[in-house]
Amino acid sequence: MSESNGVENVVIIGSGPAGWTAAIYAARANLRPLVFPGRAAGKDLMPGGQLMLTTDVENYPGFPQGIRGPEMMQTFFQQAMRFDTRVVGDKEILGGEDVSGGLFSPFQNVASLDLSKRPFRVVGDNNFECDTHALIIATGAKARWLGLESEHRLATTGGGVSACAVCDGALPMFRDVPVGVVGGGDSAVEEAVYLTKFASKVYMIVRRDALRASKIMQQRAFDNPKIEILWKKQIKEIHGDEKITGLTLFHSDTQEEEELELGGLFMALGHIPITGFLDGQIDTDETGYIQLPAPGRSMTNVEGVFAAGDVADHVYRQAITAAGMGCRAAIDAERWLGEKGIV
Amino acid sequence: MSESNGVENVVIIGSGPAGWTAAIYAARANLRPLVFPGRAAGKDLMPGGQLMLTTDVENYPGFPQGIRGPEMMQTFFQQAMRFDTRVVGDKEILGGEDVSGGLFSPFQNVASLDLSKRPFRVVGDNNFECDTHALIIATGAKARWLGLESEHRLATTGGGVSACAVCDGALPMFRDVPVGVVGGGDSAVEEAVYLTKFASKVYMIVRRDALRASKIMQQRAFDNPKIEILWKKQIKEIHGDEKITGLTLFHSDTQEEEELELGGLFMALGHIPITGFLDGQIDTDETGYIQLPAPGRSMTNVEGVFAAGDVADHVYRQAITAAGMGCRAAIDAERWLGEKGIV
Repeated sequence: MSESNGVENVVIIGSGPAGWTAAIYAARANLRPLVFPGRAAGKDLMPGGQLMLTTDVENYPGFPQGIRGPEMMQTFFQQAMRFDTRVVGDKEILGGEDVSGGLFSPFQNVASLDLSKRPFRVVGDNNFECDTHALIIATGAKARWLGLESEHRLATTGGGVSACAVCDGALPMFRDVPVGVVGGGDSAVEEAVYLTKFASKVYMIVRRDALRASKIMQQRAFDNPKIEILWKKQIKEIHGDEKITGLTLFHSDTQEEEELELGGLFMALGHIPITGFLDGQIDTDETGYIQLPAPGRSMTNVEGVFAAGDVADHVYRQAITAAGMGCRAAIDAERWLGEKGIV
Repeated sequence: MSESNGVENVVIIGSGPAGWTAAIYAARANLRPLVFPGRAAGKDLMPGGQLMLTTDVENYPGFPQGIRGPEMMQTFFQQAMRFDTRVVGDKEILGGEDVSGGLFSPFQNVASLDLSKRPFRVVGDNNFECDTHALIIATGAKARWLGLESEHRLATTGGGVSACAVCDGALPMFRDVPVGVVGGGDSAVEEAVYLTKFASKVYMIVRRDALRASKIMQQRAFDNPKIEILWKKQIKEIHGDEKITGLTLFHSDTQEEEELELGGLFMALGHIPITGFLDGQIDTDETGYIQLPAPGRSMTNVEGVFAAGDVADHVYRQAITAAGMGCRAAIDAERWLGEKGIV
């Protein structure tokens, strides 16, 4: 019957910058890619990816005045749909430019994969199944958050709470005000040092009485006169209605509370790549990121499976780098399908 | 006197997608990058890069309706200038958003580098000199063209002559019409096969009586019913006022002329990375592309020198991949400057 029961050329899992860029390139190569964008109510893969939680994007090239994250992802989506991309909706495959509701339409996530046979089997979380010759994994990673309601509200409305210092640190709201960084690893120190370029002072809020960061990174934090480390402190509440004004902290041992005035707060608790659905069928590193054995390329250890974006990048994690990787994956998939005589 | 005689944090050479993206990221990291955009009248490095010769860009994510190449590069430029990027003009350093003339201002190219001492010495082609701690090379590559006036005219006005099948092959103007591909290497076959998805027929125009392409790629060309190889043929003239209508070919041995009707022509004669000014100070591969020894990273073999874009990529060569690499180079440079205690 419909092509949903036939064999797809390429299935793309994920709908952040990497996923839609892969779709744009695959669609323009006449592959009619099928995208599982993820599920808005899902805990992991969310249509549009992390940028749906981002207010102003100032560093994606092409938008000199900046653009709001969800609006930017809507343009990526529209561009993919303008060519011959299809998406797995809640009940059926959707195609064309006029997918009602855009990225807020009900979509499916991938529940499981079978890469042990060819073509590969892909099973959605609402009973949709298909077979595909090639697969592009662009499921991204999610930042670890504290889980406070105030944190979520201020992070999604541009209220000065962020999980990416490189993305947001240079925004005017963080200039010459004290900011906090939550975490004690290498990334936390890196973000704290970065933020000293803009903020009047950077408090590192560290749960234990030591940094997890490497010795050399620790020394950079200790040596920086603008960084003050608050040891054994945890966040009880973030204050501010439209914009963060401060925190209530508590001591990890004594539970004693104190107030801290801040103009910004950056979570640096690490990221979790979204690879659970792979069930060990693709090689990942010890922290769960997909490994790309050929330098600069998108091939995984399973022939015909390609990866792009934050799920395979723990270093840069930017929209523009993810998009570049999505393009690479689509070009590599297209060439592989050609070499195999499939298209 | 002015900071032109001080030591720069980072100098960026090149002003295509990689160069400006590196500038956006470096500027937002408060590094005040200094860019040598190249020279409009120069033979090699041209302000804005190859996209200044491209009409419609349909595959750069974020522009669902497409955007004209020069307009797109203008947005990149404006975004870099909006933050604290400075460019080397013909007489002085220019900064701020209001560089008159935008990418058509008179800029300088880099004439030579001295990487044997630190900070590095950079000499412009109009007597400007400076020292810099870090260097990002984003000089790109240029496509080989035949050199015909008609070719240049039709390529720069959207007249159906292109040096990038992946970029332009899917445009409506090439659907269901016969097109030509000039060249006989692996890329030429790859582009010819790609174009069979859209064109009614693809003529490969080959100067000799054999393909340079690998055996497996040759076989793909021979096996494709839509590809016809025109052996020992060269192009004397490209016809068409606003849009290509056909060619006059001549036989490589007999010089005998013939006419061929075409709706599109794709040059696949290879690219030349712009690395001559390096004078062998950075490791390149046998075809001149800068080598990046750390997989997925932007570091060259010389510490403090980073590379991005087509000058270090002979595989993908897309605006979005170059921009992603520019971001990587700026982040790597920023971290390196931090590690060294320079900023």
